[in-house]
Amino acid sequence: MNTAAERLYEQGEAAQRASARLGRTSAETRNHALENIARALETEQGPVLEANAADYRDAETAGIDAAFLDRLLLNSDRLNGMAADVRSVASLPDPVGELIESFTLANGLEVEKRRTPLGVIASIYESRPNVTTDIVSLALKSGNACFLRGGKETLRSNLALVSLIHRAIGEAGLPTDAVQFVDDTDRELVDVILGMKQHINLLVPRGGTGLINFVAERAQMPVVTGGVGVCHTYVDRDADTEMAANIVYNAKVQRPTVCNAMDTVLVHSEAAARCLPEIAAQLNGAGVEMRCDHRALSILGPEGGLNLVPAQEEDFGQEFLALIASVRVVDSLDDALDHIETYGSGHSEAIITDDTAAAQRFLNEVDAAAVYHNTSTRFTDGAQFGLGAEVGISTQKFHARGPLGLRELTTYKWIVRGAGQVRE
Amino acid sequence: MNTAAERLYEQGEAAQRASARLGRTSAETRNHALENIARALETEQGPVLEANAADYRDAETAGIDAAFLDRLLLNSDRLNGMAADVRSVASLPDPVGELIESFTLANGLEVEKRRTPLGVIASIYESRPNVTTDIVSLALKSGNACFLRGGKETLRSNLALVSLIHRAIGEAGLPTDAVQFVDDTDRELVDVILGMKQHINLLVPRGGTGLINFVAERAQMPVVTGGVGVCHTYVDRDADTEMAANIVYNAKVQRPTVCNAMDTVLVHSEAAARCLPEIAAQLNGAGVEMRCDHRALSILGPEGGLNLVPAQEEDFGQEFLALIASVRVVDSLDDALDHIETYGSGHSEAIITDDTAAAQRFLNEVDAAAVYHNTSTRFTDGAQFGLGAEVGISTQKFHARGPLGLRELTTYKWIVRGAGQVRE
Repeated sequence: MNTAAERLYEQGEAAQRASARLGRTSAETRNHALENIARALETEQGPVLEANAADYRDAETAGIDAAFLDRLLLNSDRLNGMAADVRSVASLPDPVGELIESFTLANGLEVEKRRTPLGVIASIYESRPNVTTDIVSLALKSGNACFLRGGKETLRSNLALVSLIHRAIGEAGLPTDAVQFVDDTDRELVDVILGMKQHINLLVPRGGTGLINFVAERAQMPVVTGGVGVCHTYVDRDADTEMAANIVYNAKVQRPTVCNAMDTVLVHSEAAARCLPEIAAQLNGAGVEMRCDHRALSILGPEGGLNLVPAQEEDFGQEFLALIASVRVVDSLDDALDHIETYGSGHSEAIITDDTAAAQRFLNEVDAAAVYHNTSTRFTDGAQFGLGAEVGISTQKFHARGPLGLRELTTYKWIVRGAGQVRE
Repeated sequence: MNTAAERLYEQGEAAQRASARLGRTSAETRNHALENIARALETEQGPVLEANAADYRDAETAGIDAAFLDRLLLNSDRLNGMAADVRSVASLPDPVGELIESFTLANGLEVEKRRTPLGVIASIYESRPNVTTDIVSLALKSGNACFLRGGKETLRSNLALVSLIHRAIGEAGLPTDAVQFVDDTDRELVDVILGMKQHINLLVPRGGTGLINFVAERAQMPVVTGGVGVCHTYVDRDADTEMAANIVYNAKVQRPTVCNAMDTVLVHSEAAARCLPEIAAQLNGAGVEMRCDHRALSILGPEGGLNLVPAQEEDFGQEFLALIASVRVVDSLDDALDHIETYGSGHSEAIITDDTAAAQRFLNEVDAAAVYHNTSTRFTDGAQFGLGAEVGISTQKFHARGPLGLRELTTYKWIVRGAGQVRE
């Protein structure tokens, strides 16, 4: 192992040692540390903004695109927003030690199942520097140490943030080793991190599909991945026209670039003539391109001033992340369920209907993190669900599904109290 | 891919299709299927016993050891015992659809978090044929299909059991594809199974450390491992002598070959002179070899007729699975905690003390699946905890920790019902 790799293992060990101490701290101490971080983000902005300006200049010089530059940029408003997010995490109930269940056995043993920290949460992430404070606050609040590897374009911004964080948590009495940041952005070291299973209890990759797949494929520790959402809204035979059009519009248009935005509208053939024109009119008003199967096309166009395109096979099962929706007419709830099973990514799926039995079948049978009746897939979100902030949204079934909040960063232990009982 | 590997993928696909149907069956249908299996195990023993006799003869001819032969052996009593275990799983509450939490958001959306099956549970396991009916019953009860690969020495026994299971569940109306058994015991196919992540949602290896490590290292799907327990009992300064001796005796002697049996006794130096002789006398009565550090030796021996051996460094952190215990005198609760952190495997750890504050520190700070105060580590067991049967005992922290019962074979989904709400 070379020196840089050895250094990572030392950081991993330090994080692990710190996590044992952190798990014993009081909620007050951990909340105090988060409040210190929030206040420092508001009152000590100078060094962070300077570091970010240097990152920004270099990225600009390197010809990096505008969307990326916008994600990288910090300003006073954004730092204040990050401070508010940290405070909102601090205000959540303490997950450490939460009683999950308890019972007394026939022999008198008292058994409790209580939530405990996982240990060390690692993240490998790309451009946004706010991920640094998000993950630090969620990890510390849930009694976990963290091990962070950010992108090379934001290295100076992240180092400035981590320096602020170390000072803030140290003043609150938390071990500063609880936040480890990898300051060497050599890509080969990512492979070293993916092998550090004895020091990392959970790894959450955040970034593009390429990064996520690379990490999921090679990591030797548990990984929670997600972020890809191919989301459907099925307008059933008995859907209310106006409600269907409003919900489809919201699911597609309110924020098209995120994973819970709708990609495909499925419409029951007996509702298509009634609902599709209203849906199309609303989507068209927002400039949405509709990629329609031939039955949808025959109802909506070719005339009518809409932005219609004949759908290709690859338009189904695609996450557009843009003002584009594919549209298909189906003959039954079963056909809708089959379509979603074939093309969905297990993220968020909705049915619009006044038929309670059809809704119940949809909610039962669709295999996804979140299923919706008469509302928008855009609600799959930790804050919307009242879980506070989230590390990400899981589309896997193991450990955690849907928004990853504080509880999803914990495990549990069984605690058994006796008075000398032995096993017969 | 060769033909045998293709066949495995076909079986994986079939299991996955069946799991979707299985997830929609009623608890009554699934319980009916388990009752059919139990009755068939009692009333159709002939073909299973014949197949097992052939397996047994071959194993005997191959010179396989007596312990292995005993694990392989089926007889009428053992089949009746397996039937009773299947019925006991059937009698447990249905985990499918169980409400985990529910709340109403400020905008009126009704949110439920409900338990759902994982999908396909796979197991790669060694000699005991009862694992086949254990895993089948736990998987079907929790709405999961299963994909099984047993050892080559029990192939005929397992095929006879699976044939009985297929008939029994088919008659109850469950898809027989929900139970897939790999009938080709070519070891290279194990590697194929470990790569089938699109068809297997959870893999549980059962067998020796070699098998478990091999699987944990190479599997591309989620794996729950466990089974290794280096368990300590710490006799604190304020321990009751008789209680300490009884609990240590039970933890070591009641069933020494299992993972929750005690391996090491730690005794506080101020309690050693009082407690160690009583502990040693009881252990000695059961023929336990005590591997003692020098301070324990100086209290207990060299004279006294006990089976004492000076401990070597490797006697700490070792799972003995036999009538052997290592013994160390420590100077404080902190030293005991340090020892357990260094040498424990995160399985089951106990403190014996009348000092409530010391007990609470131990229960809080020891990082293990199960922690005990004034009772025996032998209680870490799904049946003892009232969870019914178990697939195994997890010493990892991700997804499930401790006994793996029905709930641990599930995931959850978020179900949201609205009346047209959209996200602002």
